[in-house]
Amino acid sequence: MAEGLLIVGEDVCADVVSSKDAFDAVEAVFGAMARGDAYNFPVIREAIGYADALYGFKSGFDRAGKTLGVKSGGYWPGNMDKGLTNHQSTIFLFDPDTGMLQALVGGNYLTAVRTAASSSVSIAHLARPDAKVLGMVGAGHQSTFQLRAAAEQRNFEKVVAWNPHPEMLPRLAEVAEGLGLDFDAVSPEELGAEADVIITITSAFEPLLMKDWIKPGTHIACMGTDTKGKQELDPALLAAATVFTDEIAQSVSIGEAQHAIAAGLIAEADITPIGAVINGTHPGRRDAQEITLFDGTGVGLQDLAVASVAAQKAEQAGKATRAAL
Amino acid sequence: MAEGLLIVGEDVCADVVSSKDAFDAVEAVFGAMARGDAYNFPVIREAIGYADALYGFKSGFDRAGKTLGVKSGGYWPGNMDKGLTNHQSTIFLFDPDTGMLQALVGGNYLTAVRTAASSSVSIAHLARPDAKVLGMVGAGHQSTFQLRAAAEQRNFEKVVAWNPHPEMLPRLAEVAEGLGLDFDAVSPEELGAEADVIITITSAFEPLLMKDWIKPGTHIACMGTDTKGKQELDPALLAAATVFTDEIAQSVSIGEAQHAIAAGLIAEADITPIGAVINGTHPGRRDAQEITLFDGTGVGLQDLAVASVAAQKAEQAGKATRAAL
Repeated sequence: MAEGLLIVGEDVCADVVSSKDAFDAVEAVFGAMARGDAYNFPVIREAIGYADALYGFKSGFDRAGKTLGVKSGGYWPGNMDKGLTNHQSTIFLFDPDTGMLQALVGGNYLTAVRTAASSSVSIAHLARPDAKVLGMVGAGHQSTFQLRAAAEQRNFEKVVAWNPHPEMLPRLAEVAEGLGLDFDAVSPEELGAEADVIITITSAFEPLLMKDWIKPGTHIACMGTDTKGKQELDPALLAAATVFTDEIAQSVSIGEAQHAIAAGLIAEADITPIGAVINGTHPGRRDAQEITLFDGTGVGLQDLAVASVAAQKAEQAGKATRAAL
Repeated sequence: MAEGLLIVGEDVCADVVSSKDAFDAVEAVFGAMARGDAYNFPVIREAIGYADALYGFKSGFDRAGKTLGVKSGGYWPGNMDKGLTNHQSTIFLFDPDTGMLQALVGGNYLTAVRTAASSSVSIAHLARPDAKVLGMVGAGHQSTFQLRAAAEQRNFEKVVAWNPHPEMLPRLAEVAEGLGLDFDAVSPEELGAEADVIITITSAFEPLLMKDWIKPGTHIACMGTDTKGKQELDPALLAAATVFTDEIAQSVSIGEAQHAIAAGLIAEADITPIGAVINGTHPGRRDAQEITLFDGTGVGLQDLAVASVAAQKAEQAGKATRAAL
């Protein structure tokens, strides 16, 4: 990159970073993590005791991609009433050769696409090639990103969806129909019986899908659980599945696997970083009957990877602004 | 602050933030910390395994000053050869009401003045009013900032200085003379015998000043020790002194007190936050014979406090630039 600080706003990010760009960046950094070329620093997460806000940082360094930085921000529940997004984040990239601030990148859109890319990467590497029905558990803002990204990975014909608040399903139905996919609102049991691939993306604190509802050969990307106490799946489902994750340390502590680990149903050694599948050091899915499960907890390196793409593409397109510091 | 992201570069910081501004900001935030109105988040510090760099974050929230943010940066030992400062830091301030990024402030000059303000605040509150001789241990870049700030707190007549590398002393002598102070290069023993106030600001890993060299009534601001293993003082000196600090948790783990604590010479309960003296809940110095000691470890809230002043003053002076994000 040339001299000076690069500033890439939210609108420019949405303009220059495609779903495919995010997929490639997240796939590459998951691979780098599994090779030991990239690692996440400890996460800071604080309830600041003001405005009910949760604030913190995710950071890391990817030696392979030469990406060093931090995503800063959090959750401000009162923002919606002010016409702002409740989740607010900004990504800062530093030059690993000098430590100088290199780029300032809006993090709201990028957080959405990197989270969508994560389940999408898991589908690409773990779902059956002939998967036809996509099950969506959750219908919030983020679910539309997950659905769009998933639809690029397999020749899905239909979406079956369930949400604790059924009144939110029409938005998801609209996205599915825009992608040329049939859409059925179903019960969780029906969803398990029909879906070949399932994405869970809720804020639940209890199991929404039970093991006995899931058919053999299903791939499940569990994306909602990113905090101690959150839960979307029956722990017995993790014991019945081959479990993959973005980062094992997070999976067992704040990810979906926390519950199966605590119950002694699986051990840490039973969980494989998806980067191993990407790198070809783990075979991934072994047969058409296997249930594969991806515990997507969300790591700082994903944010840095997509921000780096945003900075590069914005600069190439002449859409970044520059500032002196 | 008005709309948009405020950018305050290094030159503007040096232009708008005076030593007095830094003193007031640091004094206020130490007070807020002792009242429980402000707290530092856990520090992230990583040897990234590239370019021999140490990289990390100091962050916190001051509810009283409504200052939320993070100082990001670190130490790149190869920078000097590239014509850059080895220490590189940037401070980011967020709106505590919305989480939106508010200001981006160059952190190199501000780190120097907030560190100087810290020993200066300790001198204002703990040194004898009639102190005449200032002892400087250390003569690097930072020592000149400490000397200038200290000189504003008492009617010093003379500076006595010692440095492991005596060839660095002329720069400090020049600063002293510029302030109208006599300057003597002395041995550490002579320094202890003469000085009424001592500032240590080195990167030492062993005691430089022994207890028996220090005369009654001295105030010592120990500013160099900010990492496990670093040390500037004889641990017996901490046992003989009344010990104050910026943050107790850092003082006992990475500050000068780590050694006296490990040796069982003092307990954590023997250390007082200087904010308690600022707030009037601790009397500070009790008599002219007491040795007072300030263990300045450096906290993120100091950085945020001076950055907040820089942003406000730069904006008022029309010297900040604005960017959309």
